[in-house]
Amino acid sequence: MRPISSSLSIGFSKHGAPESSLALQRTLLSSRRDAVTVRFRLSPVNPADINQIQGTYPILPKLQPNLLQNDSETPFAICGNEGVAEIISVGENVDTSGKDWIKVGSRVVMKSTGAGTWSQYAVMDPSNLIPMNHTGVSDLTAATIMVNPCTAYRMLRDFEDLKPGDTVIQNGANSAVGQAVIQIAKSRNLKTINIIRGTTATTPRNSTTKSATPSPPRPDLDALKSRLTALGADMVVTEEELRADRSIQQHLKSSSTIKLGLNCVGGKSAASIARWLQPGASLVTYGGMSKQPVEIPTSLLIFNDLKVKGFWMTRWNELAASKAELEVEREAMIRELCRLSAAGLLATPDCEIVDVAGDGPDSLEIVKRAVDVAMRGGSGKKQVFRFL
Amino acid sequence: MRPISSSLSIGFSKHGAPESSLALQRTLLSSRRDAVTVRFRLSPVNPADINQIQGTYPILPKLQPNLLQNDSETPFAICGNEGVAEIISVGENVDTSGKDWIKVGSRVVMKSTGAGTWSQYAVMDPSNLIPMNHTGVSDLTAATIMVNPCTAYRMLRDFEDLKPGDTVIQNGANSAVGQAVIQIAKSRNLKTINIIRGTTATTPRNSTTKSATPSPPRPDLDALKSRLTALGADMVVTEEELRADRSIQQHLKSSSTIKLGLNCVGGKSAASIARWLQPGASLVTYGGMSKQPVEIPTSLLIFNDLKVKGFWMTRWNELAASKAELEVEREAMIRELCRLSAAGLLATPDCEIVDVAGDGPDSLEIVKRAVDVAMRGGSGKKQVFRFL
Repeated sequence: MRPISSSLSIGFSKHGAPESSLALQRTLLSSRRDAVTVRFRLSPVNPADINQIQGTYPILPKLQPNLLQNDSETPFAICGNEGVAEIISVGENVDTSGKDWIKVGSRVVMKSTGAGTWSQYAVMDPSNLIPMNHTGVSDLTAATIMVNPCTAYRMLRDFEDLKPGDTVIQNGANSAVGQAVIQIAKSRNLKTINIIRGTTATTPRNSTTKSATPSPPRPDLDALKSRLTALGADMVVTEEELRADRSIQQHLKSSSTIKLGLNCVGGKSAASIARWLQPGASLVTYGGMSKQPVEIPTSLLIFNDLKVKGFWMTRWNELAASKAELEVEREAMIRELCRLSAAGLLATPDCEIVDVAGDGPDSLEIVKRAVDVAMRGGSGKKQVFRFL
Repeated sequence: MRPISSSLSIGFSKHGAPESSLALQRTLLSSRRDAVTVRFRLSPVNPADINQIQGTYPILPKLQPNLLQNDSETPFAICGNEGVAEIISVGENVDTSGKDWIKVGSRVVMKSTGAGTWSQYAVMDPSNLIPMNHTGVSDLTAATIMVNPCTAYRMLRDFEDLKPGDTVIQNGANSAVGQAVIQIAKSRNLKTINIIRGTTATTPRNSTTKSATPSPPRPDLDALKSRLTALGADMVVTEEELRADRSIQQHLKSSSTIKLGLNCVGGKSAASIARWLQPGASLVTYGGMSKQPVEIPTSLLIFNDLKVKGFWMTRWNELAASKAELEVEREAMIRELCRLSAAGLLATPDCEIVDVAGDGPDSLEIVKRAVDVAMRGGSGKKQVFRFL
């Protein structure tokens, strides 16, 4: 097999709106003796990818000269943080001792942020890869397991010592992380109270403008409730029901103590979760879909000893890179998530595979459309690139 | 000396506005063989006392029949949580072994909330008392040391491991706790950045109505800055300066890392502190003067690992009651605060002594006026009852 010397990559030369910033370029692939070359099989679009293009994410991909372009002065950054790949060549100086998975054909996922997964190929240090050779785990599952399910798994583990029968309350329960929370909690015999919007959003998820008019009722509310219940949700209520429905409030008051709240909405929605938490509980924020700051009633902090924290999978991964005990913990996490997935207890999100066939303008349009769909969040399907 | 059988007490029979609820009654004092009788020397008015009258505080004094009243069916609760007293008699069954301070004439302060200090006398279990026989500590200092200075002391100790040279940022820096923070921090070689309102409030501190019009400029701003600086503040800025003044922002950016934020205001003021904290720092809320929920930008929680917590001295005292190591910690705290006070390094707040001479309507008017002054916070002086 002739060594591969270039890769088709989705990226940008300047931060801005994806619509105008995104580009498709062929980039140089310099194989290294101490690295492996991988071919990406599937590369999902996550909100962080979009924020990186916009330049608003705290970690940004590196802009560097693309020597394959005529205009090599203009730097180019390759997008994409999550993905599943296979090893297609192993450098002769790579130390494979004790790591028999470092071989051609092995399926791998990315250990940390910034791998540049929106690309056909990449040359990578094997220490940045995690083997994903578990049986019964599809490529789509492998491609989408390292961000959302891992976030859900860690939040259910790292903040409160939850015992079977304990309850977790979360907003944005229909998000990818929210659905993973429901399923992982179920597998641990934890109860979940799940809050969803009862109205449709009138602004795109990534828009910074705020809607001044109330949103219309969500047409698929009953179907959504049924779907989350089928995943294992013990209770699914809308924000409005939680605020106004006495019988729901009474049920929450009489239900077992609620030790953990998970917030991906912010604003008053965070406060409305916080109110149901038992004294000393944790409210963990991992997203901010409303674009409003997290609001916490002062009395809950002072008198209820509420602890308000945040979770970022990227930081956990950085920590794990320097702590042996967390590496062990990560292996256990991936093993458990793969076990749940293979057993049908952790559903892979609905995905739309977006084929990228070349670097022509038609392909770029397809890429931009997929990113736009991901930004609007309207299709309900996760956009996943596949390079042909 | 004839045993004392009744006490003049400030209290209420029904929760409500202090103006209408407060009453002065003679209450029965039943001495007990296993308790001591104390005479209160000074009894400060704190915000918690007012909230207890209003019925909005999470711990409320007990309403019980007052057998000395003609209408003994109507229950009465004695107000007051903080105060300095002296032991005037010791029950014959009180175990004084190893506690030679349990004797007539000893000066004591209250260990926990709910002692009913707005009274001439009280019969108390000695386990609820703390000896306060340190030299060079005035009655006024002793009367006001267990709430505000202790709150400041604990917040500077229990959340972050602060080393000399580390920086603390706080809002409401002119509050009693804020001033104690400045002085205790100074004694530990910690730097403080102190945020004050640059405008005067137009609503009483305990009002729940919000002001719709902007407040007028604070006339005493320069004097206030000088006073806090004289206490040891490294920097004193207004909310407005912090938001708009580039040179102040530049200074904060270049100053040493800020590990701890203290918030007694809430709303956007909490957010504006949170922004200056280093990653992983703690923002501790102990008050909510603005009556607005604490606002925290989502990104600080997720990307900066900000920890948002609350502090309540009452909870700490409850914890300490059941943990021997915290009792030791409390003794060290009181010793240190008394040392600072005696050395002139921890100023006693400006106080106005309010004499209560009898149970007539004139006396009640004097009591109500003092509570009103405390609610409005306008005089700048702490109101302290003294029963004649």
